Amino acid sequence: MINVSIAGGTGYTAGELLRILLRHPEVNIESVISTTSVGMPVAEMHRDLLGETDLVFSDTFRRPDVIFLCLGHGLSRTFLEENDIPASCKIIDLGNDFRNDLAFNGRNFVFGLCEQNREQIRGTNNVANPGCFATTIMLALLPLAAKKLLTDEIHVHAITGSTGAGKKPAETTHFSYRDNNISVYKPFTHQHLEEIRNTLISAGNDDLPQINFVPMRGDFTRGIFASIYTKWEGAMSESAVVDIYEEYYRSSPFVFVSKQPVSMKEVVNTNKGLLHIEFHNGYIYITSVTDNLVKGASGQAVQNMNLMFGLDETTGLKLKGSAF
Amino acid sequence: MINVSIAGGTGYTAGELLRILLRHPEVNIESVISTTSVGMPVAEMHRDLLGETDLVFSDTFRRPDVIFLCLGHGLSRTFLEENDIPASCKIIDLGNDFRNDLAFNGRNFVFGLCEQNREQIRGTNNVANPGCFATTIMLALLPLAAKKLLTDEIHVHAITGSTGAGKKPAETTHFSYRDNNISVYKPFTHQHLEEIRNTLISAGNDDLPQINFVPMRGDFTRGIFASIYTKWEGAMSESAVVDIYEEYYRSSPFVFVSKQPVSMKEVVNTNKGLLHIEFHNGYIYITSVTDNLVKGASGQAVQNMNLMFGLDETTGLKLKGSAF
Amino acid sequence: MINVSIAGGTGYTAGELLRILLRHPEVNIESVISTTSVGMPVAEMHRDLLGETDLVFSDTFRRPDVIFLCLGHGLSRTFLEENDIPASCKIIDLGNDFRNDLAFNGRNFVFGLCEQNREQIRGTNNVANPGCFATTIMLALLPLAAKKLLTDEIHVHAITGSTGAGKKPAETTHFSYRDNNISVYKPFTHQHLEEIRNTLISAGNDDLPQINFVPMRGDFTRGIFASIYTKWEGAMSESAVVDIYEEYYRSSPFVFVSKQPVSMKEVVNTNKGLLHIEFHNGYIYITSVTDNLVKGASGQAVQNMNLMFGLDETTGLKLKGSAF
Amino acid sequence: MINVSIAGGTGYTAGELLRILLRHPEVNIESVISTTSVGMPVAEMHRDLLGETDLVFSDTFRRPDVIFLCLGHGLSRTFLEENDIPASCKIIDLGNDFRNDLAFNGRNFVFGLCEQNREQIRGTNNVANPGCFATTIMLALLPLAAKKLLTDEIHVHAITGSTGAGKKPAETTHFSYRDNNISVYKPFTHQHLEEIRNTLISAGNDDLPQINFVPMRGDFTRGIFASIYTKWEGAMSESAVVDIYEEYYRSSPFVFVSKQPVSMKEVVNTNKGLLHIEFHNGYIYITSVTDNLVKGASGQAVQNMNLMFGLDETTGLKLKGSAF
Repeated sequence: MINVSIAGGTGYTAGELLRILLRHPEVNIESVISTTSVGMPVAEMHRDLLGETDLVFSDTFRRPDVIFLCLGHGLSRTFLEENDIPASCKIIDLGNDFRNDLAFNGRNFVFGLCEQNREQIRGTNNVANPGCFATTIMLALLPLAAKKLLTDEIHVHAITGSTGAGKKPAETTHFSYRDNNISVYKPFTHQHLEEIRNTLISAGNDDLPQINFVPMRGDFTRGIFASIYTKWEGAMSESAVVDIYEEYYRSSPFVFVSKQPVSMKEVVNTNKGLLHIEFHNGYIYITSVTDNLVKGASGQAVQNMNLMFGLDETTGLKLKGSAF
Repeated sequence: MINVSIAGGTGYTAGELLRILLRHPEVNIESVISTTSVGMPVAEMHRDLLGETDLVFSDTFRRPDVIFLCLGHGLSRTFLEENDIPASCKIIDLGNDFRNDLAFNGRNFVFGLCEQNREQIRGTNNVANPGCFATTIMLALLPLAAKKLLTDEIHVHAITGSTGAGKKPAETTHFSYRDNNISVYKPFTHQHLEEIRNTLISAGNDDLPQINFVPMRGDFTRGIFASIYTKWEGAMSESAVVDIYEEYYRSSPFVFVSKQPVSMKEVVNTNKGLLHIEFHNGYIYITSVTDNLVKGASGQAVQNMNLMFGLDETTGLKLKGSAF
Repeated sequence: MINVSIAGGTGYTAGELLRILLRHPEVNIESVISTTSVGMPVAEMHRDLLGETDLVFSDTFRRPDVIFLCLGHGLSRTFLEENDIPASCKIIDLGNDFRNDLAFNGRNFVFGLCEQNREQIRGTNNVANPGCFATTIMLALLPLAAKKLLTDEIHVHAITGSTGAGKKPAETTHFSYRDNNISVYKPFTHQHLEEIRNTLISAGNDDLPQINFVPMRGDFTRGIFASIYTKWEGAMSESAVVDIYEEYYRSSPFVFVSKQPVSMKEVVNTNKGLLHIEFHNGYIYITSVTDNLVKGASGQAVQNMNLMFGLDETTGLKLKGSAF
Repeated sequence: MINVSIAGGTGYTAGELLRILLRHPEVNIESVISTTSVGMPVAEMHRDLLGETDLVFSDTFRRPDVIFLCLGHGLSRTFLEENDIPASCKIIDLGNDFRNDLAFNGRNFVFGLCEQNREQIRGTNNVANPGCFATTIMLALLPLAAKKLLTDEIHVHAITGSTGAGKKPAETTHFSYRDNNISVYKPFTHQHLEEIRNTLISAGNDDLPQINFVPMRGDFTRGIFASIYTKWEGAMSESAVVDIYEEYYRSSPFVFVSKQPVSMKEVVNTNKGLLHIEFHNGYIYITSVTDNLVKGASGQAVQNMNLMFGLDETTGLKLKGSAF
């Protein structure tokens, strides 16, 4: 059994991690750390876990084999500095501290996009789990990047559920504001652009064109729908392009190319990513959907854990979708 | 023109009042008071008013003919104590300070349920505007109370939109919590029970039975749907009961008895109340719908103002419903 | 492995059954029957199953150990009449054909409320799976019924998600109608009342009082929230009542009594039922939540299958909740 | 008073037209035509109109001054062919029959985008009312087109409410499908592209670049949010561009440029259009919001009627927004 500790245990990604790990056949959760809720039963905070766990929030960990960091962005560094963690203890960071800056304090992080870095992840003790928007967009573009086929500007609109904004209430997550509403934020400047660019370049597309990315706030809780296009002027046939995608994801158990257009709920509550490809007006048009809390955060973190511990990548992750 | 001042100008009921009064043909808004946002354009706070007003929040009023109090519950008393308001200036309180305790500081308040107290409202300078749940439930029961026909326990479930909980973010108004969710709060103990009881008794039903009221939080923004039943064992025919309702509301321009079952959106964004009556299993079953921000708050406040100033009751209140 | 056939494979309950059974470790799905979609890949109809199954709809079954009937109400009888099914093949009917009329064509059905009839279900070949409203309400009342403690009228409001209305589009499931809307249907006359009454009587409460049941249409897709009260005038202490519930469900792995008020999403996408109990004004007040498609339909059907085949009741049913 | 007839009276745009016209001070609705519901009270079909009208559907009109055509696309031509309408009777077509093909049967239509063609509309008897997506996108681009400033490809994503898909139930308007879901349809090929292109060219931008338009289905009922960008490499300062917009819409009472980012609900239930402009990465980025049923359909139709009859453009259209 893998002894797991979760730091930052009260937030949304920690809750989702608990939902997954409590059903994982190879995991024992040894501690759920929270500086603010020590002594409170975990199921009082994450109310849907009633009847599923007797865990209580603690302020420290014992001897975990792996620590998941579900802290606010920037706080993972602090945690690693302030705690004495053996080098043998694996770290999976769900924050953005190490995604673009992979070395820290003697640890070298691997960017944990499983579909790209499966082998490196298997051999590392330190994983920087990708962002949710980034995951959804990278899955759509990686097969082209790996063939250096991204040659013109890339246009991306992606709409996200409210859980992506975290648990702390804010004006834009107030139900009265958000219900039946649409807005955008950080157009052209979202912080995930950096990890998207680094990833596509590292995949082989050294000369990467500009990516124009408009993130939208949707009036739903879970899921990301990304709508992406870029000029496609080569001689390659459409079916050849689909073949590139099929080939790229052949050994990936969670990513599929759909012949039919996809809707977001087809992946909600699963670790899957679905892609659909069309060609119009000299453009390749790709839609990509994920669940921001699962494949975009805690599910992918467990997928990384599975790889790091030599388990089958899908262990504990064959989740029933909600579909509706 | 009626010179109007609004105290507590940043909240939801003030916003809705502004939406209505800016289109009211007999009103001039002289001041919108906010202690926290002095100097800010009103349309920066209530963003939908862009292009409709140049008003700026102030910290005081000049010589209004009427002040609407849109303050937190309990703060209306403070406002009246701390401000020097001529007795000739009318007061319409949207809080709950005077609903059950009608005398204060030399002012005698009338409970502002227009359909019940139309004549008294016409002659007063002080109105306590009813609560939203209370309004919806009272409209369903008033015709029976006026005939002393409420003789057995009354069972009420009513579900409300999130705007009823106000603007301040809270766990239960967080989109991630509330979307696609249902919960109850204050079952059997909601504070509106007192004004409902007082009203039904004052309508004539002196010996009022117990009212069991379960308020529910709905996953929508506007509207209240109340579902009400009480034993009906008299000899009166069903059509005679409907006649009682029709008669009671004959001169009320906003309340109608529907022959078909009603759904909540039929009144959203209007000042209307719709009722539907059925008989089952020895019970009379009444459904009642309103928009909590309009008939349940700011619309009814304007209806009261119209009465107090001798205007047609519907002036400025023939609002286009949203229907969808 | 249990060879499973599903009749009526294109509807919502069949889709949910597939989602569960495709992950069930002891199940082989041998056929998914549809008279209208023979030859179509199942994952083209239930789009979220893309990448999870190569099953194709067929018009017949081979030698299943169990057939799940997911047909329209009334069509299960036709299916059993028109098909030659060995007596050894188990039947689990998700329709309402046999819930109140347990003998048919030489088969004797057991009412499949697992928490009540666990032992009988273990020994039968024929199960009538309960309705979704019925399940949610019965879970709230069974412990009292088993002690003959239901002595006064029972008041029930329950609100359901749109998936309860099935896949066929209708006016009341049109998004433009239902979004941000509330309505009621079949107040006091819903067809589930009969199975609720039969169940509570069979549990021991022979002299069952009237049940007043108002079903509501909610603007969400999954879940039922039931709000229930009945007079409570005995000498029994509140904690003694909670003890009765705890004791009743001690060996039930999916039903829990929450000390905190419950909200519906705490069980969505799980097979759990959560209950919460309060006392007010001489009433016991019980809230009960389930997912209508899981515990209210396909999850409970699988729970019944597990019992019928001697498996652990929870096999394949430890589903990750969606929580948000 | 203007005598109005509405053809195709049972659909969504006719319902919205009725909501507006019943409050219009200069209008008398003489007939609401429906071939399928003759004799039915209008308020039985459009249930929110209960208490507001005694109109009954008829199968013909008498002597209207104007007929609004709310028929299915393609059916306006049939209606004009099959009915004997005096040339003096004005026609406002809400379908798409004449938007790109302005001459028919002796009538010459003006494209009814009020902000562009105000003067022509004042002088015509025949208006082709623009599409909802088209209106939202054209308002964002017209000021640039009028200055011939659209010189590079234009990238548009726009997300629409379900009422845009009409009343007839379909898979993609089923609540269970659409709630908390996102999908796209007709990417790069939507039929509104033609009227958008024609309009921008007619505004002066003869050499119009390609427009890439991805329409999205949102999980809300009313509203369109359009997100638009195009390369901006000129020397013109940002504030000069905003000035162009301000100038273009100076005499338009419904269109405003917001200094703050806009969210969709700021215009829902109003005839307004809000625009917001930013500059990023060499692009001008414009967001544009409207209510698809009001400014995108029936509100604009009434705005056109006002112009055609010499009324103030805003008569009957100062609608209270729903805001929430």
